[in-house]
Amino acid sequence: MKHIAEIVSVGTEILLGNIVNTDARDISQMLSELGINVYYHTVVGDNPERLSQVVGIAKSRADIIITTGGLGPTCDDLTKQILAESFGKKLVLNEEEAEFIKSYFEKAIRRKTFTQNNMRQAMLPEGCTIFRNHWGTAPGCAFEADGVHVLMLPGPPRECITMFRSCAMPYLRSLSDGEIVSHNVHVFGLGESAMEDKLHEMMENMQNPTVAPYAKEGECFTRVTAKAATAEEAEALMKPIIKDICEILGPVVYGIDTGSLEKTVFDLLKEKGKTLATAESCTGGLVSSRLTSIPGSSEVFLGGVAAYSNESKIALLGVKPETIAANGAVCRDVAIQMATGIREKLNSDISIGITGIAGPSSDGSGKEVGLVYVAMNAEGNVHCRCLHLGSERFRVRTAAANNALDMIRRYLTGLDI
Amino acid sequence: MKHIAEIVSVGTEILLGNIVNTDARDISQMLSELGINVYYHTVVGDNPERLSQVVGIAKSRADIIITTGGLGPTCDDLTKQILAESFGKKLVLNEEEAEFIKSYFEKAIRRKTFTQNNMRQAMLPEGCTIFRNHWGTAPGCAFEADGVHVLMLPGPPRECITMFRSCAMPYLRSLSDGEIVSHNVHVFGLGESAMEDKLHEMMENMQNPTVAPYAKEGECFTRVTAKAATAEEAEALMKPIIKDICEILGPVVYGIDTGSLEKTVFDLLKEKGKTLATAESCTGGLVSSRLTSIPGSSEVFLGGVAAYSNESKIALLGVKPETIAANGAVCRDVAIQMATGIREKLNSDISIGITGIAGPSSDGSGKEVGLVYVAMNAEGNVHCRCLHLGSERFRVRTAAANNALDMIRRYLTGLDI
Repeated sequence: MKHIAEIVSVGTEILLGNIVNTDARDISQMLSELGINVYYHTVVGDNPERLSQVVGIAKSRADIIITTGGLGPTCDDLTKQILAESFGKKLVLNEEEAEFIKSYFEKAIRRKTFTQNNMRQAMLPEGCTIFRNHWGTAPGCAFEADGVHVLMLPGPPRECITMFRSCAMPYLRSLSDGEIVSHNVHVFGLGESAMEDKLHEMMENMQNPTVAPYAKEGECFTRVTAKAATAEEAEALMKPIIKDICEILGPVVYGIDTGSLEKTVFDLLKEKGKTLATAESCTGGLVSSRLTSIPGSSEVFLGGVAAYSNESKIALLGVKPETIAANGAVCRDVAIQMATGIREKLNSDISIGITGIAGPSSDGSGKEVGLVYVAMNAEGNVHCRCLHLGSERFRVRTAAANNALDMIRRYLTGLDI
Repeated sequence: MKHIAEIVSVGTEILLGNIVNTDARDISQMLSELGINVYYHTVVGDNPERLSQVVGIAKSRADIIITTGGLGPTCDDLTKQILAESFGKKLVLNEEEAEFIKSYFEKAIRRKTFTQNNMRQAMLPEGCTIFRNHWGTAPGCAFEADGVHVLMLPGPPRECITMFRSCAMPYLRSLSDGEIVSHNVHVFGLGESAMEDKLHEMMENMQNPTVAPYAKEGECFTRVTAKAATAEEAEALMKPIIKDICEILGPVVYGIDTGSLEKTVFDLLKEKGKTLATAESCTGGLVSSRLTSIPGSSEVFLGGVAAYSNESKIALLGVKPETIAANGAVCRDVAIQMATGIREKLNSDISIGITGIAGPSSDGSGKEVGLVYVAMNAEGNVHCRCLHLGSERFRVRTAAANNALDMIRRYLTGLDI
């Protein structure tokens, strides 16, 4: 059976333009992985009559309705009530979920006051499948009625997407005929259209698997998706295609399904038994912050310095005042001295040093915004990239951090740096 | 008259999750500026039957329909045909627009081939107002029929938004009966439901302005929105309400419309002429990274250390080995020594030291995951918070960083810390 899904997002803040509906995009991508067609997205405010009408329309044209938002503890949050009503279900207190929410409050967020309206979150449609929320307090749920599968997810993107992946996908997978499996080939150092150009010929003639390019902040990836009777058969279909893609794209491919450059670097450091230290100026701790977001990073990451001022570069990293006096803080030599300085201080195998002008204005030296030097000292071997990263602060910082991680990756995998 | 708008976005790429619907967000913001209520966003694919049904529903519940996408030259682009049909209008060739498109091709995008199907773009509903596209080739347009105003805009965000601002806003302004203005009251240290509890009585009786609570990662805010004939009148309506909210909530309010704790801290440091340095263990540079994301942060932020290993705490911050030996790295004394150490190294007015267990597993000391000490040395005065932040790594790190920023804010505004 061919399923048709509609995503109904509930939230006045979307209609006011305060937030962009990334939930609908992310859920659509995951539904596409499952081979489920999405025909409609609808956004409606926190208003019972309008939500009820929207659900009535969705019922008439889709057999999978996925709602996001409106599951919280406040009186604005009415998704469960309206959906239950629309499908003739009662809301009943789920004792187990009530206990979990209570203990979540006690353990996870101790200092917040537990109020009675939090208990409303444990009122769920009778007989539903509960999606426990380990990332917030509002549980999600799913039920089938009138031939329609209804899934309700919380609105905050982190909660919504993690719950969708861990709870809703297994639920929906059982509705699908056959298995759809995807792999992402992650790329750094090649734009989306250049990537598409290289893969164009291959993409054009493919039906199953399919090959599709995507762009993300500062990097991009190619998704390969196959459908078959079993996951094993789908994997077998994809294997030669992924191999071809890696060959066509070459060393810009930094991983399959790794999710992020920092995760790739973390895995490589761990595998090779190497340690890392960082010295950052214009990125201000972005590299160390991204690396330490990974559980277990203390095994490979020793520490870092965000050396924002000239004085801190001298005091914490041993950068020579005369180098700064001669060339300014944004130059090749300072980047290298930063990397070498932190490596000596912390006795790491590998270290990086980043200095640049993130903007929006320059540093008074006449150097252009977006000029960044990224140095690496890898077991005594020094490398430095001089980059021109444009004029947008967020992009300059992200791209500088990505370049540092890419240099470490290339060093650890024996590629040219 | 009270207008109700629906935004209908046409594009299979949105339903596949390839792009996020920023057009709907940006148009919603601009409609809100005009005082026009947006009740629905709908996304539908490049399919004539489904688009026709969606337009039928929109007609029945809105008196302003704004479409985005589907105006291009390919056979997928069917928005104009379907909308014209739905409202009983003919499409006619507009000679002037045809000339303009032709000359645009010749002048603006010399290298693209002009094809006959580009002429389809000059086919427009009879009697419509034309929105000339100076940023691409597909013109937009507007017409009124059956008591509904229909506006059609191209999909690519730059074309859509610039055309909306320069052509659609003047068209719609003549329909609007007032201005809507919003302000956000930002809060740290109080949950969404506790905040709502405190504001419940006030919220219940309000019609204009309205008061609504929202939650974001680790903090929350209350939005006050007023509608009046002019923006000044709307501001006057809100002023006493915002004052009341600040009084009811007290010192947990950290700012109005500031957007983030780091921005508030940055503004306060700048205003008071104070400098900051950071020493972070479990947050690994998150505080420094967030602070340095703000343009101009180099004026107040001197630098920081991400002291992840014990050795780095000793080498970079002068933490005493005997303190770590006696109590482990996660204790009050280490947090204070970290703060004091970085303050002395960088000669800052204020400094913070953060040490804790971000999880998912503990550090072998038997201390619980989520235990975090945040110390501040503010011009020689030492303060320390001992926090229990739950078991989820992302939340522990975010909340620890927020607490550090909150301590600085409270110090700089003379509040209890």
